[in-house]
Amino acid sequence: MKIALAQLNYHIGNFDANTEKIIKAITEAKGKGTDLIVFSELCIPGYPSRDFLEFKEFIDLCEQSAQKIAAVCIDIACVVGIPTYNHKPEGKDLNNSAYFIADGKVQSVVNKALLPNYDVFDEYRYFEPETEFHCIDYKGHRIALTICEDLWNDIENPLYVTRPMDKLIEQNPDVMINIAASPFAYNHDEERIAILKDNATRYQLPLFYVNTIGAHTELIFDGGSLVFDKKGELIDELPYFEETIAYYELKEDDTIVAQQPITLKAERQSDIEQIHLGLLLGIRDYFSKSGFSKAILGLSGGIDSAVVCALAAEALGPQNVMAVLLPSKFSTDHSLKDAEDLVANLGCLSQTIPIKDITDAFEKALEPQFKGLPFNIAEENIQARTRAVLLMAMSNKFGYILLNTSNKSEAAVGYGTLYGDMCGGISVLGDVFKTQVFQLAKYLNREREIIPINTIVKPPSAELRPDQKDSDSLPDYDILDKILAEYIEHRCSSKEIIQMGYDEQLVRRVLRLVNTSEHKRYQTPPILRVSPKAFGMGRRMPLVGKYLS
Amino acid sequence: MKIALAQLNYHIGNFDANTEKIIKAITEAKGKGTDLIVFSELCIPGYPSRDFLEFKEFIDLCEQSAQKIAAVCIDIACVVGIPTYNHKPEGKDLNNSAYFIADGKVQSVVNKALLPNYDVFDEYRYFEPETEFHCIDYKGHRIALTICEDLWNDIENPLYVTRPMDKLIEQNPDVMINIAASPFAYNHDEERIAILKDNATRYQLPLFYVNTIGAHTELIFDGGSLVFDKKGELIDELPYFEETIAYYELKEDDTIVAQQPITLKAERQSDIEQIHLGLLLGIRDYFSKSGFSKAILGLSGGIDSAVVCALAAEALGPQNVMAVLLPSKFSTDHSLKDAEDLVANLGCLSQTIPIKDITDAFEKALEPQFKGLPFNIAEENIQARTRAVLLMAMSNKFGYILLNTSNKSEAAVGYGTLYGDMCGGISVLGDVFKTQVFQLAKYLNREREIIPINTIVKPPSAELRPDQKDSDSLPDYDILDKILAEYIEHRCSSKEIIQMGYDEQLVRRVLRLVNTSEHKRYQTPPILRVSPKAFGMGRRMPLVGKYLS
Repeated sequence: MKIALAQLNYHIGNFDANTEKIIKAITEAKGKGTDLIVFSELCIPGYPSRDFLEFKEFIDLCEQSAQKIAAVCIDIACVVGIPTYNHKPEGKDLNNSAYFIADGKVQSVVNKALLPNYDVFDEYRYFEPETEFHCIDYKGHRIALTICEDLWNDIENPLYVTRPMDKLIEQNPDVMINIAASPFAYNHDEERIAILKDNATRYQLPLFYVNTIGAHTELIFDGGSLVFDKKGELIDELPYFEETIAYYELKEDDTIVAQQPITLKAERQSDIEQIHLGLLLGIRDYFSKSGFSKAILGLSGGIDSAVVCALAAEALGPQNVMAVLLPSKFSTDHSLKDAEDLVANLGCLSQTIPIKDITDAFEKALEPQFKGLPFNIAEENIQARTRAVLLMAMSNKFGYILLNTSNKSEAAVGYGTLYGDMCGGISVLGDVFKTQVFQLAKYLNREREIIPINTIVKPPSAELRPDQKDSDSLPDYDILDKILAEYIEHRCSSKEIIQMGYDEQLVRRVLRLVNTSEHKRYQTPPILRVSPKAFGMGRRMPLVGKYLS
Repeated sequence: MKIALAQLNYHIGNFDANTEKIIKAITEAKGKGTDLIVFSELCIPGYPSRDFLEFKEFIDLCEQSAQKIAAVCIDIACVVGIPTYNHKPEGKDLNNSAYFIADGKVQSVVNKALLPNYDVFDEYRYFEPETEFHCIDYKGHRIALTICEDLWNDIENPLYVTRPMDKLIEQNPDVMINIAASPFAYNHDEERIAILKDNATRYQLPLFYVNTIGAHTELIFDGGSLVFDKKGELIDELPYFEETIAYYELKEDDTIVAQQPITLKAERQSDIEQIHLGLLLGIRDYFSKSGFSKAILGLSGGIDSAVVCALAAEALGPQNVMAVLLPSKFSTDHSLKDAEDLVANLGCLSQTIPIKDITDAFEKALEPQFKGLPFNIAEENIQARTRAVLLMAMSNKFGYILLNTSNKSEAAVGYGTLYGDMCGGISVLGDVFKTQVFQLAKYLNREREIIPINTIVKPPSAELRPDQKDSDSLPDYDILDKILAEYIEHRCSSKEIIQMGYDEQLVRRVLRLVNTSEHKRYQTPPILRVSPKAFGMGRRMPLVGKYLS
């Protein structure tokens, strides 16, 4: 049996584009004598379609697309992901399903049994889990078809002791297929390989695993589809962050022969290499899928905006990136110089708009109210917000999307101005700790100096008052980021973090800062997710909670 | 058996305050010879605690509070809501539980079986559903104790055909108790009464239902706890939006005698009366639970800011409300006059800060970029954003919380300026359609003129360019609000709405406006929820979806 794996990028709710892409792939595969082409989970509407799934019209449009796809499935079969109505008398309206299509019609429907409902996943919101299992017979093979989480049943994970494959194996399948929409995190590829390998080994069956690629606002999907033989050997690993269709022959003796040079990796990519590629895809898809091409951002001379600018230039082309220098009376000469050097290195567009006259006008207008009161955070924030108003004015006038440049460390402790530097259509670095931003800057400079060295080596500063340094208000990022990771990613208590050897006062202060800045994060742009625990849809905290604050 | 129902207001994660409040109620009830006092669902940590439930420390603190509560339960029993560890080998870490405490210790644990995971609810994110059921014997009675949704099994709702009470009834209980955290919506009280009445009638048992009250940022809980006799007659209905403890005697013959004058309502409150009370509680709790007392808002002379100002003055006291008039060159004299009249009517604080010099400074700074281009939305937004910067500066300097004044109609179609009039700590009217805002204004004027009549009768305008009217850009609110309700609340398709008789072009335009402004709503403040479908946590849409846009 000749099997094709279609690792493609879909657009949520864009039925015409998604269906056309699927049909094109089927046609191509058919031309190559393929018996079965496999697409990823919920490819027809795109994943996650979220509350669009509550609209009957949306579900009906999915079914109409499936019928168009079925019409071209003559002399070839396909597996596509689609939401379908739950026909049982009880439970949610929908199932998360796979259609097995052959001879021009849907031959079999498989529903997902294990529904993730944690972190960024909300599948119980829409879907009823399946409790009955059946294999699919096709071309002399018996296929155990499952959907994503159905195989994600690590022996040590109490979430799902019940394994759909334990039921399916009783029907003596000879091959496993799993269709997935498994989002990117810099450590997710290794986990995915280990869990799927475990399945191939446990059930002693060849396994074809198709993941989607593409970014949908915050969620990035990285592809990396996998093929294992029945001994659990990894036969192929498709490219990450790229669309690709790969062809394999599953022989009578259960061996698998790739029909093209295999792309199996010799070694894992580093976290930073993966984050770099993930962010590029995240930026590119955010723009293309929302119908925009040009980005704008404020360039301070600091490392965060420099890295965002370099990533945007790489993702969108430097000619589509407008960097705006917005110096205040507290901006240092070296910051302006560093920003200008970056613009020259990248070849992107730039403008300079000094903000002093505007902040003076604000302070003058507020004189009756503020008279006699010392300069404080109110005046600092006026500067950050003046910059945001200017950037948004440029955005409104010329159709740019504003890129947010806050990093995860700042977002965590609320070190940023709401409606100021926390503005933007999308946050590029909101899931990248400051220490990782430095690593990313060095990585971007791996071939030539793009990020000016001075931007990397100088002490970070918001430059909102004379001689300000981040270290005046915050602990060293080396320590801060470690404490933040323990609290946010590992959900450790203050007591546990202190027991690891961190200063008690410091730990309590950092956790208090995190908890008391939930209201700021609530209103920040969507954040490109690259870690196992990002701010945003995957972390849902009360705003008026008292705990630890 | 003497039963007390404690309808109280908790603070999420504030274990000291919540435990103290519960113990005080137990002590009071004991003093009155009560056998059993019943508190609401998850009262120990507060509901919804959201991802704090993923912290082991948080769950341990809940258990410690329960032990403190148990220590005072001598010669009285209590039911409290608490998250507990799931001790089964499979599934989520936690159960949503009720402790039945007597003789100083936990005698029985009941876990919730039907977990809501729709709209604002995420219970499958944290909890494993219970599948085994047992009654509790106490003082010669056999109690069927369930938690909120467990009784929320309308015969016509396919979500839960399985009813926990159908299992419990086999054990011959003689009374039902249900503890709840059922959020407010203006139509929810009647639905709640009908569903609980149906339970009492179906199982022919007396029913004591305890709901929580209090607001947790967007979610408002309205109380209205209920007592039914075994014929399904409503014996008592506790007050809405108020803390109260009520006492009843359940006689040997199953009749119920209230120990205080019953508060059963002669007639239902109107939607607007309920919304009014809900918003007052929402504002009050948002401030008190986040430790603030003073509000600020921009007063335009229009109806939205006038209504928010009046509500804030009623909720917080006029002395705690700072109304700022921020006239531009496009502001009309009558708007200033209307705003001043409102301030005089309310007796709140006010300041006037003209914005012309600041917007001039912005336009001058942008002259090199904007030269020769016509005045458009960029300049309009500069005005709205300048106002936001001034209001936030006042907020930062003096510790006010900025109240957002956008209404649901505007929020739906994106008729507002992100980082401008869409700013604020909490959105007061974001779940109130413009037509309802007018009704609310009239209701606020029911005894005397608070909202100036001219504010109510003049055509709505953003006053961001000369002679601007909302009706230049938007259909009449009467029609707009109906289309929005069909789409957002009833999830109708464009086709269905057109078939109702609305103009096709208009319907398509409105739906497109809703879908293409998701990115704006993503960054708006939390919205006080008063309807069955509010923007925010209960409506989760993709931002880069193509559907209908």
